[in-house]
Amino acid sequence: MASVVGEEVSNKQVIFKDYFTGFPKESDMYLTTSTIKLKVPEGSNGVLLKNLYLSCDPVMRILMQRVVPKGFSNYTPGSPINGYGVAKVLDSGHPDFKAGDLVWGSARWEEYSLITATEGLRKITHSDVPLSYYTGLLGMPGMTAYAGFHEVCSPKKGEYVFVSAASGAVGQLVGQFAKLLGCYVVGSAGSKEKVDLLKNKFGFDDAFNYKEEHDLDAALKRYFPEGIDIYFENVGGETLDAVLLNMRVHGRIAVCGMISQYNLDQPEGIKNLMCLIYKRIHMTGFTVRDYYHLYPKFLDTVLPYIKEGKITYVEDIAEGLESGPAALVGLFSGRNIGKQVVVIARE
Amino acid sequence: MASVVGEEVSNKQVIFKDYFTGFPKESDMYLTTSTIKLKVPEGSNGVLLKNLYLSCDPVMRILMQRVVPKGFSNYTPGSPINGYGVAKVLDSGHPDFKAGDLVWGSARWEEYSLITATEGLRKITHSDVPLSYYTGLLGMPGMTAYAGFHEVCSPKKGEYVFVSAASGAVGQLVGQFAKLLGCYVVGSAGSKEKVDLLKNKFGFDDAFNYKEEHDLDAALKRYFPEGIDIYFENVGGETLDAVLLNMRVHGRIAVCGMISQYNLDQPEGIKNLMCLIYKRIHMTGFTVRDYYHLYPKFLDTVLPYIKEGKITYVEDIAEGLESGPAALVGLFSGRNIGKQVVVIARE
Repeated sequence: MASVVGEEVSNKQVIFKDYFTGFPKESDMYLTTSTIKLKVPEGSNGVLLKNLYLSCDPVMRILMQRVVPKGFSNYTPGSPINGYGVAKVLDSGHPDFKAGDLVWGSARWEEYSLITATEGLRKITHSDVPLSYYTGLLGMPGMTAYAGFHEVCSPKKGEYVFVSAASGAVGQLVGQFAKLLGCYVVGSAGSKEKVDLLKNKFGFDDAFNYKEEHDLDAALKRYFPEGIDIYFENVGGETLDAVLLNMRVHGRIAVCGMISQYNLDQPEGIKNLMCLIYKRIHMTGFTVRDYYHLYPKFLDTVLPYIKEGKITYVEDIAEGLESGPAALVGLFSGRNIGKQVVVIARE
Repeated sequence: MASVVGEEVSNKQVIFKDYFTGFPKESDMYLTTSTIKLKVPEGSNGVLLKNLYLSCDPVMRILMQRVVPKGFSNYTPGSPINGYGVAKVLDSGHPDFKAGDLVWGSARWEEYSLITATEGLRKITHSDVPLSYYTGLLGMPGMTAYAGFHEVCSPKKGEYVFVSAASGAVGQLVGQFAKLLGCYVVGSAGSKEKVDLLKNKFGFDDAFNYKEEHDLDAALKRYFPEGIDIYFENVGGETLDAVLLNMRVHGRIAVCGMISQYNLDQPEGIKNLMCLIYKRIHMTGFTVRDYYHLYPKFLDTVLPYIKEGKITYVEDIAEGLESGPAALVGLFSGRNIGKQVVVIARE
């Protein structure tokens, strides 16, 4: 259904209820319907967006806390949650955007949005790929994988690479980037189906289901008899502790996320940090925000890979804004297979 | 008493009894007396040393364990313990050393040693400083402080630096190097006397007694209202957890040691590692072994500082090999004030 500029239309929204502790539940969000005029108000330099795809990212859990780390803005109870998304410009008061442009970046969980903080939006210049990719492969998770692996891990051909949450939005790409460089790559994930994906679709050298391993240290010794040069950390907790025991001298750990910890009131303690000394390990936390200056280089690298079939990307697409809360909550039980996307409209 | 080459003399030794867990005790070592001929055997390319000063270093505790990390050689029950020391060559079968040379490096805890692994020894080329300095300021701890601060921490003028175990062999130097570079430096130590030393002798901007702080996080917030750019980690455990909460964005943690953990069967868990992500922190374990190629540059830097009085060094000197076990054990209760040295002979 075409959206007519100037029209007043109904606008479904996913509202954040209130701060909580523990695992997120669907009932921590609710759907409502308001109305919106599909026009940028006179004198505003904002843009009026029709949202197409929304991204479910683990970091969103952190924004549901009352107290958040410096530099993060938590959600406002009673307002739509926000995250990354792909949208089409319906009307623009900003010289950099015009009606018909496709954009990705900061989005609100609603059908239509008036966005005044346009610095959070990037114009999509290549639309000959699935637009949903701009929530994953060509968006924040893709840049995270690219910068985290190439800039933080200092990888070399032939090195041993371990990726946790390896079939997720970031992990599946880290493994593929590592294979393209000539590394030996093993991934861990939480189901047989995901392990199959790692081995048979993403080309990991090996993979295992961490839920079936009673002794993660022993599992890593089996998969990495020579030890691990690079660990791309997405989960934290006991996986990190086991990895520390299996790192090689001068190994590198890129700390991208610790999804196993986000829902705990007290994070688990990591006991094996003395390995940092014994093995002279570099452990570096990073956020993609520090690397967006590399985005043009990233596109130049990755777009040809997509076209040549050298990189593949698996998405788990939930249909409709109504399915958003369940999709987001599902991240924390590992329900999603691949990048979790919510489609609101395909055009 | 002059040592006559060729003579057979009695040789006091400190023997390692057996592997243990928990805190070291004097009774984990014992004194014995054997005899040694003060001559390198015919055909050997070893050196016969008269030991002058022995160094007490926290890492020696790790070598008293049955199982040690890869790359470490634990002590042999019934044999003399070993560590760093300063010695005089009495006889040499090695072309690089001659009688009368002073050396520092790997030493055994005994009056005289026949050393065949001469690659662990370095000739002392500057003897116009106290020779005991080659167990500390000009030896392994000095190089550790120099490389750990300048190479691992990437320090910049004006940055906020926190040093734990700050009056120890390494810590007192890290603080002084940081001050020479123009950083703001605070140290923690375990007594009023040590805190006074930090403030009044080593020129730290401030210092506190960690044993008097019930809430280390609050203490660090008081001493670093702007946060910490660089943490030089010597202790581990709850200090590290509190520091993580107080690091600044793009901060650096050089992990040199974790003395609070060496005597525990199970290391304490570190809970605040998610701060690595939020603050994009680099945390790097290192050992001085990777940096000895910088030793000549280090001497060129530090010797003038000593002569100009820009660097000072406090040693805690125990008299006689008999006092060695108590001196070594004392490191773990913080009994020593400054670098713990055992003097066997002054020439």
